[in-house]
Amino acid sequence: MGGDHGPSVTVPAALSVLRAESGLHVILVGQRELLVPVIGKSLGAFGDRLILQEATQVVTMDERPQDALRKKKDSSMRVAIDLVKANAADACVSAGNTGALMATARFVLKTVPGIDRPAILARIPSKTGHTHMLDLGANADCTAEQLFQFAVMGSVVAADMNGVDRPRVGLLNIGEEEVKGNEVVQQASSLLGQSTLNYIGFVEGTDIFTGAVDVVVTDGFTGNIALKTMEGVAAMLVGTLRTEYTRNPLRRLGALVSWPVLKAVRQRFDTRTLNGASMVGLTGVVIKSHGGADEVAFANAIRVGLVEARKGAPTEISQLLAAQPSQKKH
Amino acid sequence: MGGDHGPSVTVPAALSVLRAESGLHVILVGQRELLVPVIGKSLGAFGDRLILQEATQVVTMDERPQDALRKKKDSSMRVAIDLVKANAADACVSAGNTGALMATARFVLKTVPGIDRPAILARIPSKTGHTHMLDLGANADCTAEQLFQFAVMGSVVAADMNGVDRPRVGLLNIGEEEVKGNEVVQQASSLLGQSTLNYIGFVEGTDIFTGAVDVVVTDGFTGNIALKTMEGVAAMLVGTLRTEYTRNPLRRLGALVSWPVLKAVRQRFDTRTLNGASMVGLTGVVIKSHGGADEVAFANAIRVGLVEARKGAPTEISQLLAAQPSQKKH
Repeated sequence: MGGDHGPSVTVPAALSVLRAESGLHVILVGQRELLVPVIGKSLGAFGDRLILQEATQVVTMDERPQDALRKKKDSSMRVAIDLVKANAADACVSAGNTGALMATARFVLKTVPGIDRPAILARIPSKTGHTHMLDLGANADCTAEQLFQFAVMGSVVAADMNGVDRPRVGLLNIGEEEVKGNEVVQQASSLLGQSTLNYIGFVEGTDIFTGAVDVVVTDGFTGNIALKTMEGVAAMLVGTLRTEYTRNPLRRLGALVSWPVLKAVRQRFDTRTLNGASMVGLTGVVIKSHGGADEVAFANAIRVGLVEARKGAPTEISQLLAAQPSQKKH
Repeated sequence: MGGDHGPSVTVPAALSVLRAESGLHVILVGQRELLVPVIGKSLGAFGDRLILQEATQVVTMDERPQDALRKKKDSSMRVAIDLVKANAADACVSAGNTGALMATARFVLKTVPGIDRPAILARIPSKTGHTHMLDLGANADCTAEQLFQFAVMGSVVAADMNGVDRPRVGLLNIGEEEVKGNEVVQQASSLLGQSTLNYIGFVEGTDIFTGAVDVVVTDGFTGNIALKTMEGVAAMLVGTLRTEYTRNPLRRLGALVSWPVLKAVRQRFDTRTLNGASMVGLTGVVIKSHGGADEVAFANAIRVGLVEARKGAPTEISQLLAAQPSQKKH
């Protein structure tokens, strides 16, 4: 139900992934009177692979997480997460209110044993494809142990999504000579150095985009600011290109001739392709789609949920964590 | 002497600013035998406005700050800062080793009374011009009081550089509903709310580029990572444009027709224009040029030093800090 566009985007996206993935079952959770008209004749077409689950309430995009948690116990978001909890669903995919989704998911699903807090992981475009980065805003202050746990979580998701065995994990830090980063980052680096992860050491902000690392680990404060910074730079660059290309008829001609280039650049940085952030560290798979996602973007978020559910990411995280030397000591 | 290119860049840059600014005096500090050939006939042309000051040592770009401080007491960097300390110079401009410059400047000049630590402030391109941002890497961990002091320092420099009375100051934070940022940021916001500064509240990473704020305050860890992130995104975008525009002859034609656009975009994001970071909070003016600066870029760093010296930024910082309610309580 959630997101800026509601069922008009989420339902067609679900139908398109159902067509492409024959093993997929979808439970559409929400207000029946709003869902049925959008589903139309497709409801029968997929047999038991498409089910409708009534939920009478909707969490709004600006609702406070604690209010959503307390007052909206029959929201589409809550019911979907309850289904994951009850093993009636293998993943929950939502384009709704991020804070409410995280609070509800934490409350209902709890974290994997050994994981203190869930984190938000997203794929960031890089020169060679994409980089997995976490935490992007769930935890403003983090301990060294939490950063270490994020590295384990990121390593599992990157391995699942990219089909690689031991993804390269880097810890975000600053490169100035005088200051070698804060205490927490130093301690986390020491923990990671003793782990079984493919830890490549400290990385800087520039390294997110070079393809030199598969998983970038940082606290939610720094991660969120880095994410918003990259969005801001990209928007400014695109805005400048648009302004400059429409300044006069000759420049418009330039835009016309450059059309294939601009299209390729747009595709390269198409956030729709990488839509679907993972709320990792929970006992179930919860995927957050961008609120403004269109059909293509939301379908990609569903695909992320499908991969993580098939691989059993929560169990993998639990196992990889248990295999760490630092855990065995306890 | 410093920077990637040494006197071949710094000397011509100094001469060009000397030509444009009749009130400027320049003391070139370094190894005479390397400086004299580059200066050539210009040495006499400016009379006492161009002086040569011998310094026998050079701090290398990869030297550890503490080593530079202890072993290079006759380096060009050290001698230049000593000149500021002795009031024989009003500003030091260097393209050398950042860590060594900061360590030396702190040791020799000390901070303005009431300022705990100096910070690195730079101008970041925005849609409407530029945004002043600090700290960009000098202090990994910051207290709320230090962030408050950074706001005072940033406010002074932005007012001096932009010629505005009360620049808008924002505190960098994350916007997620659930987590409202860490404790330090909350406390700093409270201090700023009671200040005489034009504090507009929390800003997010995207706001750095919109022109909605003149001064963005953050700790050196977050600031450095945001800076490197924006460099990484910009490099990736430019790299993609280059790759796509050279893929085939037709696209090369597109680049040719689009040449004025690409030139305008390049100028818009020309880091040379905004070269010259301020090491603020010290009792003297110290400007750090990008190590790879060319003549145009280094000349701009000199101009920043000129403005801050003329305005007396260190004294202004001291005065603005003393005028704050939070200071009067002590």
